[in-house]
Amino acid sequence: MVIFVDMDEVIADTYGEHIKIYNAEFNGSLTTEKCSGTEVWKMVPEAHQESVRKHATRTGFFKELKVIDHSQEVLLQLSKKHDVYIASAAMQFPNSLEEKSDWLDEHFPFIPWQNRILCGHKHILKGDILIDDRSYNLTNFDGRGIQFASPHNVHTEGFERANSWLELGEKLFE
Amino acid sequence: MVIFVDMDEVIADTYGEHIKIYNAEFNGSLTTEKCSGTEVWKMVPEAHQESVRKHATRTGFFKELKVIDHSQEVLLQLSKKHDVYIASAAMQFPNSLEEKSDWLDEHFPFIPWQNRILCGHKHILKGDILIDDRSYNLTNFDGRGIQFASPHNVHTEGFERANSWLELGEKLFE
Repeated sequence: MVIFVDMDEVIADTYGEHIKIYNAEFNGSLTTEKCSGTEVWKMVPEAHQESVRKHATRTGFFKELKVIDHSQEVLLQLSKKHDVYIASAAMQFPNSLEEKSDWLDEHFPFIPWQNRILCGHKHILKGDILIDDRSYNLTNFDGRGIQFASPHNVHTEGFERANSWLELGEKLFE
Repeated sequence: MVIFVDMDEVIADTYGEHIKIYNAEFNGSLTTEKCSGTEVWKMVPEAHQESVRKHATRTGFFKELKVIDHSQEVLLQLSKKHDVYIASAAMQFPNSLEEKSDWLDEHFPFIPWQNRILCGHKHILKGDILIDDRSYNLTNFDGRGIQFASPHNVHTEGFERANSWLELGEKLFE
């Protein structure tokens, strides 16, 4: 099987980084829980929103992201049985491209460059499974779309859902 | 229609740049004609081959590439009628990623980030047409593959061929 796996919010914790930066710079007290059902930038005062929306354009933002729990061990096992690709809609942020490649080298060295995709629209992907947090990516995918839980999609319905990598592992090793 | 267009040797002249750098650094007299049917690095003395093979890892290499004749005008017209994507197997060279994005901004601003793909294997692409110079990319593509002429593929057979962007324009606007 060909399995595509999104990066941000699926294997890389962007929410955590947004919150960490915001709290540090504006003496804030945001938490992931407070951002449930929405986006981080929408949870800050209007005067700070522009700053949060530009986090992703900063040099180093994508280098610092924490790995989502258990994604490494499950993907390592999956990649032994299946053709696993990382597919990130990264082209919006040219500064992120090399950082994302370096981040994958560091945390997912078992996914070789041949299996890494930085793109825009994801409906050009041809494969069996797409694991992604964003509904608009899943809607236009031809195969089995699995929505990975993220604070912004806790109220989203209509997709097969995985709340953790352990749950994903169970689904995909059935 | 969804049309994928490769970068190196299809819209960006890597051969010309390899030859320019080699001749400047080794006082060479290579020409594109001399490299017909082979790769640039195979046409230099063995002691210089490693140097040529590493051109693509240099900062700035992809920034300097000349645009292949008529690719801009034909792609501009194509992109008005079709869903045109640039798809480059760039992940092997992390240094190239941002440079390729910048180069597209400069020379192909009408192809938005949503329609840009930096990848490894191209058999994960789902669309109607792939224009590429490399046989291994065309072989595994499900749709119509068109081999774009490049010095290295002058003797390659088995694919529909386009010798220039003017010819491609005629084919695709039929």
